[in-house]
Amino acid sequence: MSRLDEPLYFSTLTSPPAEQPAAVTLVGAGPGDPDLLTVKAARALGQATLVLYDHLVSKDVLKLIRDDADLIYVGKEAGHHTLTQEGIIELMIRLARSGRAVLRLKGGDPYIFGRGGEEAQALAAAGIPFETIPGISAAQAAGALAGIPLTHRDHACSLVFATGHLREAVDGEPRSVDLDWDMLARPRQTVVIYMGLGSLAIISEQLIGHGLSPDTPAALVEKASTPQQRCLRGSLQTLPTLARLQGVKPPALLIIGDVAALHEQLAPAMRATHCKG
Amino acid sequence: MSRLDEPLYFSTLTSPPAEQPAAVTLVGAGPGDPDLLTVKAARALGQATLVLYDHLVSKDVLKLIRDDADLIYVGKEAGHHTLTQEGIIELMIRLARSGRAVLRLKGGDPYIFGRGGEEAQALAAAGIPFETIPGISAAQAAGALAGIPLTHRDHACSLVFATGHLREAVDGEPRSVDLDWDMLARPRQTVVIYMGLGSLAIISEQLIGHGLSPDTPAALVEKASTPQQRCLRGSLQTLPTLARLQGVKPPALLIIGDVAALHEQLAPAMRATHCKG
Repeated sequence: MSRLDEPLYFSTLTSPPAEQPAAVTLVGAGPGDPDLLTVKAARALGQATLVLYDHLVSKDVLKLIRDDADLIYVGKEAGHHTLTQEGIIELMIRLARSGRAVLRLKGGDPYIFGRGGEEAQALAAAGIPFETIPGISAAQAAGALAGIPLTHRDHACSLVFATGHLREAVDGEPRSVDLDWDMLARPRQTVVIYMGLGSLAIISEQLIGHGLSPDTPAALVEKASTPQQRCLRGSLQTLPTLARLQGVKPPALLIIGDVAALHEQLAPAMRATHCKG
Repeated sequence: MSRLDEPLYFSTLTSPPAEQPAAVTLVGAGPGDPDLLTVKAARALGQATLVLYDHLVSKDVLKLIRDDADLIYVGKEAGHHTLTQEGIIELMIRLARSGRAVLRLKGGDPYIFGRGGEEAQALAAAGIPFETIPGISAAQAAGALAGIPLTHRDHACSLVFATGHLREAVDGEPRSVDLDWDMLARPRQTVVIYMGLGSLAIISEQLIGHGLSPDTPAALVEKASTPQQRCLRGSLQTLPTLARLQGVKPPALLIIGDVAALHEQLAPAMRATHCKG
Protein backbone atom coordinates (compact mmCIF):
# COMPACT_ATOMS: atom_id res chain seq x y z
CA MET A 1 0.00 0.00 0.00
CA SER A 2 1.51 3.32 -1.00
CA ARG A 3 0.88 5.88 1.70
CA LEU A 4 1.26 9.52 0.85
CA ASP A 5 1.28 11.50 4.01
CA GLU A 6 2.31 14.58 2.11
CA PRO A 7 -0.58 14.99 -0.30
CA LEU A 8 0.87 18.17 -1.74
CA TYR A 9 3.17 15.94 -3.80
CA PHE A 10 0.77 13.79 -5.68
CA SER A 11 1.89 14.48 -9.22
CA THR A 12 2.89 10.89 -9.82
CA LEU A 13 -0.66 9.79 -9.23
CA THR A 14 -2.27 11.88 -11.91
CA SER A 15 -1.98 11.52 -15.63
CA PRO A 16 -3.37 13.69 -18.46
CA PRO A 17 -7.19 14.06 -18.41
CA ALA A 18 -8.99 10.90 -19.47
CA GLU A 19 -11.78 11.05 -22.03
CA GLN A 20 -14.35 10.30 -19.33
CA PRO A 21 -13.78 11.22 -15.69
CA ALA A 22 -13.79 8.33 -13.26
CA ALA A 23 -16.28 8.31 -10.39
CA VAL A 24 -15.83 9.39 -6.79
CA THR A 25 -17.42 7.44 -3.95
CA LEU A 26 -17.95 9.39 -0.75
CA VAL A 27 -17.83 6.73 1.94
CA GLY A 28 -18.81 7.03 5.61
CA ALA A 29 -16.06 5.32 7.63
CA GLY A 30 -18.29 5.15 10.71
CA PRO A 31 -17.11 5.73 14.28
CA GLY A 32 -13.94 3.60 14.31
CA ASP A 33 -14.82 -0.08 14.77
CA PRO A 34 -14.59 -1.61 11.26
CA ASP A 35 -17.53 -3.88 12.17
CA LEU A 36 -19.67 -0.75 12.22
CA LEU A 37 -18.95 0.04 8.58
CA THR A 38 -21.87 -0.74 6.31
CA VAL A 39 -21.51 -3.88 4.21
CA LYS A 40 -21.42 -1.62 1.16
CA ALA A 41 -18.65 0.58 2.57
CA ALA A 42 -16.55 -2.43 3.60
CA ARG A 43 -16.89 -3.85 0.08
CA ALA A 44 -15.96 -0.52 -1.52
CA LEU A 45 -12.86 -0.29 0.70
CA GLY A 46 -11.78 -3.78 -0.33
CA GLN A 47 -12.03 -2.85 -4.01
CA ALA A 48 -10.64 0.69 -4.05
CA THR A 49 -7.29 1.42 -5.68
CA LEU A 50 -7.08 5.04 -4.55
CA VAL A 51 -8.29 6.32 -1.18
CA LEU A 52 -8.29 9.86 0.24
CA TYR A 53 -8.89 9.80 3.98
CA ASP A 54 -9.30 12.16 6.94
CA HIS A 55 -7.64 12.01 10.34
CA LEU A 56 -10.88 10.84 12.01
CA VAL A 57 -10.75 7.54 10.10
CA SER A 58 -9.49 4.73 12.35
CA LYS A 59 -6.43 2.61 11.61
CA ASP A 60 -8.54 -0.54 11.83
CA VAL A 61 -10.78 0.74 9.05
CA LEU A 62 -7.75 1.56 6.88
CA LYS A 63 -6.59 -2.06 7.24
CA LEU A 64 -9.47 -3.12 4.99
CA ILE A 65 -7.85 -1.34 2.05
CA ARG A 66 -5.90 -3.46 -0.43
CA ASP A 67 -2.14 -3.58 -0.16
CA ASP A 68 -1.68 -2.31 -3.71
CA ALA A 69 -3.97 0.69 -3.28
CA ASP A 70 -2.72 4.28 -3.11
CA LEU A 71 -3.64 5.88 0.18
CA ILE A 72 -3.56 9.66 0.57
CA TYR A 73 -3.92 11.34 3.93
CA VAL A 74 -5.75 14.64 3.62
CA GLY A 75 -6.61 15.15 7.32
CA LYS A 76 -6.61 18.46 9.01
CA GLU A 77 -4.75 17.81 12.23
CA ALA A 78 -2.62 20.64 13.54
CA GLY A 79 1.02 20.50 12.54
CA HIS A 80 0.68 18.44 9.38
CA HIS A 81 1.30 19.63 5.86
CA THR A 82 -2.24 18.94 4.88
CA LEU A 83 -4.66 20.37 2.42
CA THR A 84 -7.39 22.93 2.87
CA GLN A 85 -10.97 21.86 2.08
CA GLU A 86 -10.55 23.55 -1.30
CA GLY A 87 -7.31 21.68 -1.87
CA ILE A 88 -8.97 18.34 -1.09
CA ILE A 89 -11.75 19.08 -3.54
CA GLU A 90 -9.28 20.15 -6.23
CA LEU A 91 -7.22 16.99 -5.73
CA MET A 92 -10.31 14.74 -5.91
CA ILE A 93 -11.49 16.37 -9.11
CA ARG A 94 -8.02 16.21 -10.69
CA LEU A 95 -7.64 12.52 -9.86
CA ALA A 96 -11.13 11.67 -11.15
CA ARG A 97 -10.49 13.64 -14.37
CA SER A 98 -7.28 11.70 -14.89
CA GLY A 99 -9.43 8.57 -15.01
CA ARG A 100 -8.68 7.22 -11.54
CA ALA A 101 -11.68 6.14 -9.46
CA VAL A 102 -11.45 7.80 -6.04
CA LEU A 103 -12.76 6.51 -2.75
CA ARG A 104 -13.15 9.49 -0.46
CA LEU A 105 -13.27 8.16 3.10
CA LYS A 106 -14.69 10.36 5.83
CA GLY A 107 -15.22 9.63 9.54
CA GLY A 108 -18.81 8.95 10.61
CA ASP A 109 -21.45 9.84 8.02
CA PRO A 110 -20.32 12.04 5.10
CA TYR A 111 -23.50 14.15 5.31
CA ILE A 112 -23.52 14.73 9.09
CA PHE A 113 -20.92 17.43 9.86
CA GLY A 114 -18.50 15.74 7.47
CA ARG A 115 -18.40 18.52 4.84
CA GLY A 116 -19.38 15.79 2.42
CA GLY A 117 -22.12 18.09 1.15
CA GLU A 118 -19.54 20.60 -0.03
CA GLU A 119 -17.52 17.87 -1.72
CA ALA A 120 -20.58 16.42 -3.44
CA GLN A 121 -21.56 19.88 -4.64
CA ALA A 122 -18.10 20.52 -6.09
CA LEU A 123 -18.05 17.11 -7.82
CA ALA A 124 -21.47 17.71 -9.34
CA ALA A 125 -20.43 21.19 -10.51
CA ALA A 126 -17.34 19.66 -12.15
CA GLY A 127 -19.40 16.97 -13.86
CA ILE A 128 -17.74 14.12 -11.95
CA PRO A 129 -20.13 11.23 -11.30
CA PHE A 130 -20.33 10.30 -7.63
CA GLU A 131 -22.10 8.13 -5.12
CA THR A 132 -22.49 8.51 -1.35
CA ILE A 133 -22.47 5.62 1.12
CA PRO A 134 -23.83 6.63 4.54
CA GLY A 135 -22.02 5.69 7.76
CA ILE A 136 -22.84 5.20 11.42
CA SER A 137 -22.36 8.58 13.02
CA ALA A 138 -20.47 8.95 16.31
CA ALA A 139 -23.72 9.78 18.13
CA GLN A 140 -25.25 6.46 17.14
CA ALA A 141 -22.18 4.50 18.21
CA ALA A 142 -21.94 6.40 21.49
CA GLY A 143 -25.62 5.78 22.20
CA ALA A 144 -25.52 2.07 21.40
CA LEU A 145 -22.19 1.34 23.07
CA ALA A 146 -22.44 3.53 26.15
CA GLY A 147 -26.06 2.62 26.87
CA ILE A 148 -27.67 5.98 26.09
CA PRO A 149 -30.75 5.69 23.84
CA LEU A 150 -30.82 8.95 21.86
CA THR A 151 -34.61 9.11 21.93
CA HIS A 152 -37.04 7.64 24.44
CA ARG A 153 -40.78 8.25 24.68
CA ASP A 154 -40.59 9.19 28.34
CA HIS A 155 -37.66 11.56 28.02
CA ALA A 156 -37.05 13.01 24.56
CA CYS A 157 -39.36 13.54 21.62
CA SER A 158 -36.70 15.14 19.45
CA LEU A 159 -33.00 14.79 18.85
CA VAL A 160 -30.66 17.64 17.88
CA PHE A 161 -27.16 17.32 16.45
CA ALA A 162 -24.87 20.37 16.52
CA THR A 163 -21.14 21.09 16.59
CA GLY A 164 -19.22 22.83 19.32
CA HIS A 165 -16.46 24.36 17.20
CA LEU A 166 -14.86 27.34 18.89
CA ARG A 167 -14.93 30.52 16.87
CA GLU A 168 -11.68 32.44 16.80
CA ALA A 169 -11.46 35.40 19.17
CA VAL A 170 -12.22 38.68 17.38
CA ASP A 171 -10.99 42.11 18.53
CA GLY A 172 -10.11 41.01 22.02
CA GLU A 173 -13.52 39.35 22.58
CA PRO A 174 -13.22 35.90 24.20
CA ARG A 175 -13.52 32.83 21.97
CA SER A 176 -17.12 31.76 21.55
CA VAL A 177 -19.34 29.06 20.09
CA ASP A 178 -21.85 29.94 17.42
CA LEU A 179 -24.92 27.97 18.52
CA ASP A 180 -28.62 28.73 18.85
CA TRP A 181 -28.74 28.47 22.65
CA ASP A 182 -32.47 29.18 22.95
CA MET A 183 -33.19 26.26 20.69
CA LEU A 184 -30.75 23.91 22.42
CA ALA A 185 -32.01 24.76 25.91
CA ARG A 186 -35.51 23.37 25.31
CA PRO A 187 -36.96 20.64 27.53
CA ARG A 188 -37.73 17.09 26.43
CA GLN A 189 -35.08 16.76 23.77
CA THR A 190 -31.68 15.13 23.46
CA VAL A 191 -28.86 17.41 22.34
CA VAL A 192 -25.74 15.83 20.89
CA ILE A 193 -22.73 18.06 20.35
CA TYR A 194 -19.92 16.89 18.10
CA MET A 195 -16.45 18.28 18.71
CA GLY A 196 -17.68 19.95 21.88
CA LEU A 197 -14.88 19.01 24.25
CA GLY A 198 -12.91 22.23 23.79
CA SER A 199 -16.01 24.33 24.35
CA LEU A 200 -17.59 22.21 27.09
CA ALA A 201 -17.39 24.92 29.74
CA ILE A 202 -18.99 27.50 27.42
CA ILE A 203 -21.72 25.06 26.37
CA SER A 204 -22.51 24.19 29.98
CA GLU A 205 -22.63 27.84 31.04
CA GLN A 206 -24.75 28.94 28.09
CA LEU A 207 -27.30 26.15 28.37
CA ILE A 208 -27.73 26.81 32.09
CA GLY A 209 -27.94 30.54 31.38
CA HIS A 210 -30.65 29.88 28.80
CA GLY A 211 -32.83 27.92 31.19
CA LEU A 212 -31.70 24.29 31.41
CA SER A 213 -31.32 23.00 34.94
CA PRO A 214 -27.68 22.66 36.10
CA ASP A 215 -28.70 19.11 37.10
CA THR A 216 -29.63 18.13 33.54
CA PRO A 217 -27.97 14.75 32.94
CA ALA A 218 -25.05 14.83 30.51
CA ALA A 219 -22.42 12.40 29.28
CA LEU A 220 -19.16 12.58 27.39
CA VAL A 221 -18.29 9.59 25.25
CA GLU A 222 -14.61 9.51 24.26
CA LYS A 223 -13.47 7.50 21.21
CA ALA A 224 -16.86 5.78 20.81
CA SER A 225 -16.71 2.21 19.49
CA THR A 226 -12.93 1.87 19.79
CA PRO A 227 -11.16 -0.28 22.40
CA GLN A 228 -10.32 3.02 24.16
CA GLN A 229 -13.96 4.07 24.53
CA ARG A 230 -14.73 5.84 27.82
CA CYS A 231 -17.97 7.37 29.01
CA LEU A 232 -18.12 10.06 31.67
CA ARG A 233 -21.46 10.73 33.31
CA GLY A 234 -22.38 13.87 35.16
CA SER A 235 -24.64 16.88 34.87
CA LEU A 236 -24.41 20.05 32.81
CA GLN A 237 -22.79 21.64 35.83
CA THR A 238 -20.34 18.91 36.82
CA LEU A 239 -19.23 17.58 33.45
CA PRO A 240 -16.65 20.27 32.58
CA THR A 241 -14.77 19.59 35.83
CA LEU A 242 -15.10 15.82 35.48
CA ALA A 243 -13.76 15.98 31.94
CA ARG A 244 -10.74 17.98 33.08
CA LEU A 245 -10.02 15.68 36.01
CA GLN A 246 -10.32 12.56 33.88
CA GLY A 247 -8.24 14.02 31.06
CA VAL A 248 -10.75 13.34 28.29
CA LYS A 249 -9.28 13.84 24.82
CA PRO A 250 -10.92 14.33 21.42
CA PRO A 251 -12.75 12.91 19.64
CA ALA A 252 -15.43 13.06 22.31
CA LEU A 253 -19.16 13.38 21.93
CA LEU A 254 -21.33 15.31 24.34
CA ILE A 255 -24.87 14.04 25.03
CA ILE A 256 -27.20 16.29 27.02
CA GLY A 257 -30.68 15.38 28.25
CA ASP A 258 -32.55 12.97 30.50
CA VAL A 259 -31.60 10.00 28.32
CA ALA A 260 -28.00 10.33 29.51
CA ALA A 261 -29.16 9.14 32.94
CA LEU A 262 -30.43 5.87 31.43
CA HIS A 263 -26.79 4.85 31.20
CA GLU A 264 -26.77 3.84 34.88
CA GLN A 265 -29.78 1.58 34.31
CA LEU A 266 -28.54 0.00 31.09
CA ALA A 267 -24.79 -0.37 31.60
CA PRO A 268 -24.91 -3.15 34.23
CA ALA A 269 -26.72 -5.46 31.78
CA MET A 270 -24.63 -4.49 28.78
CA ARG A 271 -21.85 -6.61 27.43
CA ALA A 272 -18.57 -4.73 27.26
CA THR A 273 -19.06 -1.17 28.35
CA HIS A 274 -17.21 1.15 30.71
CA CYS A 275 -18.33 4.44 32.16
CA LYS A 276 -17.12 6.67 34.98
CA GLY A 277 -18.71 9.62 36.76
CA MET B 1 -37.17 -21.00 8.37
CA SER B 2 -40.16 -21.18 10.67
CA ARG B 3 -42.19 -18.00 10.39
CA LEU B 4 -44.67 -17.19 13.09
CA ASP B 5 -46.90 -14.41 11.89
CA GLU B 6 -49.16 -14.86 14.90
CA PRO B 7 -46.77 -14.26 17.75
CA LEU B 8 -49.51 -14.70 20.34
CA TYR B 9 -49.02 -18.44 19.91
CA PHE B 10 -45.40 -18.92 20.69
CA SER B 11 -45.63 -21.51 23.45
CA THR B 12 -43.74 -24.09 21.44
CA LEU B 13 -40.73 -21.82 21.35
CA THR B 14 -40.29 -21.45 25.07
CA SER B 15 -39.20 -24.01 27.56
CA PRO B 16 -38.88 -23.83 31.37
CA PRO B 17 -36.52 -21.08 32.63
CA ALA B 18 -32.86 -21.88 32.05
CA GLU B 19 -30.34 -21.45 34.82
CA GLN B 20 -28.82 -18.45 33.10
CA PRO B 21 -30.87 -16.25 30.78
CA ALA B 22 -29.59 -16.02 27.22
CA ALA B 23 -28.68 -12.64 25.76
CA VAL B 24 -30.73 -10.33 23.58
CA THR B 25 -29.12 -8.39 20.73
CA LEU B 26 -30.97 -5.25 19.64
CA VAL B 27 -30.01 -4.87 16.01
CA GLY B 28 -30.58 -1.90 13.71
CA ALA B 29 -31.87 -3.26 10.41
CA GLY B 30 -31.10 0.00 8.62
CA PRO B 31 -33.30 1.61 5.98
CA GLY B 32 -34.06 -1.42 3.76
CA ASP B 33 -31.10 -2.15 1.48
CA PRO B 34 -29.22 -5.07 3.11
CA ASP B 35 -25.95 -3.55 1.90
CA LEU B 36 -26.61 -0.71 4.33
CA LEU B 37 -26.61 -3.02 7.35
CA THR B 38 -23.44 -2.77 9.41
CA VAL B 39 -20.98 -5.62 8.99
CA LYS B 40 -21.70 -6.55 12.61
CA ALA B 41 -25.48 -6.61 12.09
CA ALA B 42 -25.17 -8.70 8.92
CA ARG B 43 -23.00 -11.21 10.78
CA ALA B 44 -25.44 -11.35 13.74
CA LEU B 45 -28.33 -12.00 11.33
CA GLY B 46 -26.44 -14.86 9.70
CA GLN B 47 -25.84 -16.50 13.08
CA ALA B 48 -29.18 -15.94 14.84
CA THR B 49 -31.50 -18.84 15.56
CA LEU B 50 -34.42 -16.75 16.82
CA VAL B 51 -35.39 -13.35 15.41
CA LEU B 52 -38.18 -10.97 16.46
CA TYR B 53 -38.79 -8.34 13.80
CA ASP B 54 -40.93 -5.27 13.11
CA HIS B 55 -42.89 -4.42 9.99
CA LEU B 56 -40.37 -1.75 8.96
CA VAL B 57 -37.69 -4.41 8.38
CA SER B 58 -37.30 -5.12 4.66
CA LYS B 59 -37.76 -8.55 3.07
CA ASP B 60 -34.25 -8.35 1.62
CA VAL B 61 -32.80 -7.96 5.10
CA LEU B 62 -34.82 -10.93 6.37
CA LYS B 63 -33.28 -13.06 3.60
CA LEU B 64 -29.96 -12.93 5.46
CA ILE B 65 -31.43 -15.03 8.28
CA ARG B 66 -30.62 -18.75 8.32
CA ASP B 67 -33.22 -21.16 6.99
CA ASP B 68 -33.39 -23.06 10.26
CA ALA B 69 -33.97 -19.95 12.39
CA ASP B 70 -37.30 -19.13 14.05
CA LEU B 71 -38.66 -15.85 12.81
CA ILE B 72 -41.37 -14.04 14.76
CA TYR B 73 -43.20 -11.06 13.34
CA VAL B 74 -44.08 -8.58 16.06
CA GLY B 75 -44.91 -5.60 13.82
CA LYS B 76 -47.62 -3.14 14.54
CA GLU B 77 -49.33 -2.73 11.21
CA ALA B 78 -53.07 -2.10 11.35
CA GLY B 79 -55.22 -5.20 10.96
CA HIS B 80 -52.71 -7.74 12.21
CA HIS B 81 -52.96 -9.77 15.40
CA THR B 82 -49.76 -8.32 16.71
CA LEU B 83 -48.35 -7.54 20.09
CA THR B 84 -48.33 -4.32 22.06
CA GLN B 85 -44.95 -2.86 23.02
CA GLU B 86 -45.42 -4.44 26.46
CA GLY B 87 -46.22 -7.77 24.83
CA ILE B 88 -43.06 -7.63 22.72
CA ILE B 89 -40.96 -6.91 25.80
CA GLU B 90 -42.62 -9.73 27.75
CA LEU B 91 -42.03 -12.17 24.90
CA MET B 92 -38.36 -11.19 24.57
CA ILE B 93 -37.75 -11.62 28.27
CA ARG B 94 -39.58 -14.96 28.36
CA LEU B 95 -37.57 -16.30 25.44
CA ALA B 96 -34.25 -15.10 26.88
CA ARG B 97 -35.12 -16.62 30.27
CA SER B 98 -35.86 -19.93 28.60
CA GLY B 99 -32.25 -19.90 27.43
CA ARG B 100 -32.81 -18.91 23.82
CA ALA B 101 -30.62 -16.11 22.46
CA VAL B 102 -32.85 -13.50 20.82
CA LEU B 103 -32.00 -11.20 17.96
CA ARG B 104 -34.41 -8.26 18.14
CA LEU B 105 -34.43 -6.64 14.70
CA LYS B 106 -35.70 -3.07 14.39
CA GLY B 107 -35.90 -0.82 11.31
CA GLY B 108 -33.28 1.94 11.12
CA ASP B 109 -31.35 2.54 14.34
CA PRO B 110 -32.78 0.99 17.52
CA TYR B 111 -32.09 4.15 19.53
CA ILE B 112 -33.51 6.69 17.06
CA PHE B 113 -37.32 6.56 17.35
CA GLY B 114 -37.20 2.78 17.44
CA ARG B 115 -38.40 2.35 21.05
CA GLY B 116 -35.20 0.37 21.52
CA GLY B 117 -34.52 2.44 24.62
CA GLU B 118 -37.64 1.08 26.28
CA GLU B 119 -36.70 -2.46 25.33
CA ALA B 120 -33.15 -2.06 26.62
CA GLN B 121 -34.49 -0.62 29.86
CA ALA B 122 -36.86 -3.55 30.36
CA LEU B 123 -34.13 -6.08 29.61
CA ALA B 124 -31.77 -4.45 32.08
CA ALA B 125 -34.50 -4.35 34.74
CA ALA B 126 -35.13 -8.06 34.17
CA GLY B 127 -31.42 -8.87 34.43
CA ILE B 128 -31.16 -10.07 30.81
CA PRO B 129 -27.75 -9.34 29.27
CA PHE B 130 -28.02 -7.39 26.04
CA GLU B 131 -26.06 -5.64 23.34
CA THR B 132 -27.10 -2.94 20.86
CA ILE B 133 -25.87 -2.72 17.27
CA PRO B 134 -26.59 0.67 15.69
CA GLY B 135 -28.09 0.98 12.22
CA ILE B 136 -28.22 3.51 9.40
CA SER B 137 -31.27 5.61 10.10
CA ALA B 138 -33.74 6.48 7.32
CA ALA B 139 -32.59 10.12 7.38
CA GLN B 140 -29.03 9.10 6.54
CA ALA B 141 -30.12 6.84 3.72
CA ALA B 142 -32.49 9.46 2.32
CA GLY B 143 -29.75 12.08 2.46
CA ALA B 144 -27.10 9.93 0.80
CA LEU B 145 -29.35 8.38 -1.84
CA ALA B 146 -31.53 11.34 -2.75
CA GLY B 147 -28.63 13.82 -2.81
CA ILE B 148 -29.58 15.89 0.25
CA PRO B 149 -26.64 16.50 2.63
CA LEU B 150 -28.24 16.77 6.08
CA THR B 151 -25.77 19.43 7.19
CA HIS B 152 -23.84 21.93 5.11
CA ARG B 153 -21.76 24.85 6.35
CA ASP B 154 -23.55 27.33 4.11
CA HIS B 155 -27.06 26.19 4.96
CA ALA B 156 -27.49 24.34 8.24
CA CYS B 157 -25.43 24.36 11.42
CA SER B 158 -27.72 21.96 13.26
CA LEU B 159 -29.84 18.96 12.45
CA VAL B 160 -33.08 18.04 14.22
CA PHE B 161 -34.86 14.68 14.11
CA ALA B 162 -38.50 14.50 15.25
CA THR B 163 -41.55 12.33 14.57
CA GLY B 164 -44.80 13.44 13.01
CA HIS B 165 -47.14 10.97 14.75
CA LEU B 166 -50.71 12.22 14.79
CA ARG B 167 -52.26 12.42 18.23
CA GLU B 168 -55.76 11.03 18.48
CA ALA B 169 -58.61 13.59 18.37
CA VAL B 170 -59.82 14.47 21.86
CA ASP B 171 -63.34 15.80 22.64
CA GLY B 172 -64.14 16.84 19.12
CA GLU B 173 -60.83 18.74 18.70
CA PRO B 174 -59.11 18.02 15.38
CA ARG B 175 -56.20 15.57 15.36
CA SER B 176 -52.90 17.26 16.07
CA VAL B 177 -49.16 16.70 16.19
CA ASP B 178 -47.29 17.16 19.44
CA LEU B 179 -44.17 19.04 18.31
CA ASP B 180 -42.24 22.04 19.57
CA TRP B 181 -43.04 24.30 16.61
CA ASP B 182 -41.06 27.29 17.85
CA MET B 183 -37.97 25.15 18.00
CA LEU B 184 -38.54 23.53 14.59
CA ALA B 185 -39.23 26.85 12.85
CA ARG B 186 -35.74 28.24 13.44
CA PRO B 187 -33.52 29.37 10.57
CA ARG B 188 -30.28 27.68 9.48
CA GLN B 189 -31.12 24.16 10.54
CA THR B 190 -32.27 20.99 8.83
CA VAL B 191 -35.41 19.40 10.23
CA VAL B 192 -36.07 15.74 9.48
CA ILE B 193 -39.47 14.35 10.37
CA TYR B 194 -39.98 10.60 10.57
CA MET B 195 -43.47 9.23 9.97
CA GLY B 196 -44.65 12.68 8.95
CA LEU B 197 -46.60 11.81 5.81
CA GLY B 198 -50.00 11.61 7.53
CA SER B 199 -49.44 14.93 9.27
CA LEU B 200 -47.68 16.72 6.39
CA ALA B 201 -50.42 19.35 5.96
CA ILE B 202 -50.40 20.16 9.70
CA ILE B 203 -46.59 20.32 9.79
CA SER B 204 -46.48 22.64 6.78
CA GLU B 205 -49.17 24.93 8.21
CA GLN B 206 -47.62 25.07 11.69
CA LEU B 207 -44.07 25.74 10.52
CA ILE B 208 -45.27 28.54 8.24
CA GLY B 209 -47.46 29.85 11.09
CA HIS B 210 -44.42 29.88 13.38
CA GLY B 211 -42.31 31.91 11.01
CA LEU B 212 -40.67 29.72 8.36
CA SER B 213 -41.06 31.02 4.82
CA PRO B 214 -43.64 29.12 2.74
CA ASP B 215 -40.86 28.85 0.15
CA THR B 216 -38.53 26.93 2.48
CA PRO B 217 -37.22 24.00 0.44
CA ALA B 218 -38.59 20.62 1.49
CA ALA B 219 -38.39 17.05 0.22
CA LEU B 220 -40.22 13.80 0.83
CA VAL B 221 -38.19 10.63 0.38
CA GLU B 222 -40.38 7.54 0.04
CA LYS B 223 -38.94 4.07 0.79
CA ALA B 224 -35.36 5.37 1.03
CA SER B 225 -32.67 2.92 -0.18
CA THR B 226 -35.13 0.42 -1.67
CA PRO B 227 -35.62 -0.12 -5.42
CA GLN B 228 -38.90 1.79 -4.99
CA GLN B 229 -37.23 4.91 -3.60
CA ARG B 230 -38.82 8.16 -4.79
CA CYS B 231 -37.96 11.71 -3.86
CA LEU B 232 -40.44 14.57 -4.18
CA ARG B 233 -39.08 18.09 -4.09
CA GLY B 234 -41.08 21.19 -3.32
CA SER B 235 -41.48 23.83 -0.66
CA LEU B 236 -43.18 23.80 2.72
CA GLN B 237 -46.22 25.21 0.95
CA THR B 238 -46.33 22.98 -2.12
CA LEU B 239 -45.22 19.63 -0.70
CA PRO B 240 -48.57 18.53 0.84
CA THR B 241 -50.32 18.91 -2.54
CA LEU B 242 -47.45 17.30 -4.44
CA ALA B 243 -47.48 14.33 -2.07
CA ARG B 244 -51.22 13.85 -2.59
CA LEU B 245 -50.97 14.14 -6.37
CA GLN B 246 -48.08 11.71 -6.55
CA GLY B 247 -49.70 9.24 -4.15
CA VAL B 248 -46.73 9.00 -1.78
CA LYS B 249 -47.10 6.14 0.71
CA PRO B 250 -45.34 5.43 4.02
CA PRO B 251 -42.63 4.97 5.02
CA ALA B 252 -41.66 8.45 3.87
CA LEU B 253 -39.21 10.86 5.38
CA LEU B 254 -39.70 14.62 5.37
CA ILE B 255 -36.62 16.87 5.08
CA ILE B 256 -37.11 20.61 5.59
CA GLY B 257 -34.46 23.28 5.09
CA ASP B 258 -32.20 24.84 2.50
CA VAL B 259 -30.23 21.61 2.09
CA ALA B 260 -33.26 20.05 0.37
CA ALA B 261 -32.63 22.36 -2.58
CA LEU B 262 -29.14 20.90 -3.05
CA HIS B 263 -30.87 17.87 -4.52
CA GLU B 264 -31.25 19.63 -7.87
CA GLN B 265 -27.52 20.33 -7.96
CA LEU B 266 -26.38 16.90 -6.84
CA ALA B 267 -28.83 14.51 -8.49
CA PRO B 268 -27.63 14.96 -12.10
CA ALA B 269 -24.15 13.70 -11.16
CA MET B 270 -25.39 10.91 -8.91
CA ARG B 271 -25.45 7.32 -9.93
CA ALA B 272 -28.93 5.83 -9.60
CA THR B 273 -31.31 8.37 -8.17
CA HIS B 274 -34.78 9.52 -9.08
CA CYS B 275 -36.67 12.58 -7.89
CA LYS B 276 -39.81 14.39 -9.00
CA GLY B 277 -41.19 17.80 -8.14
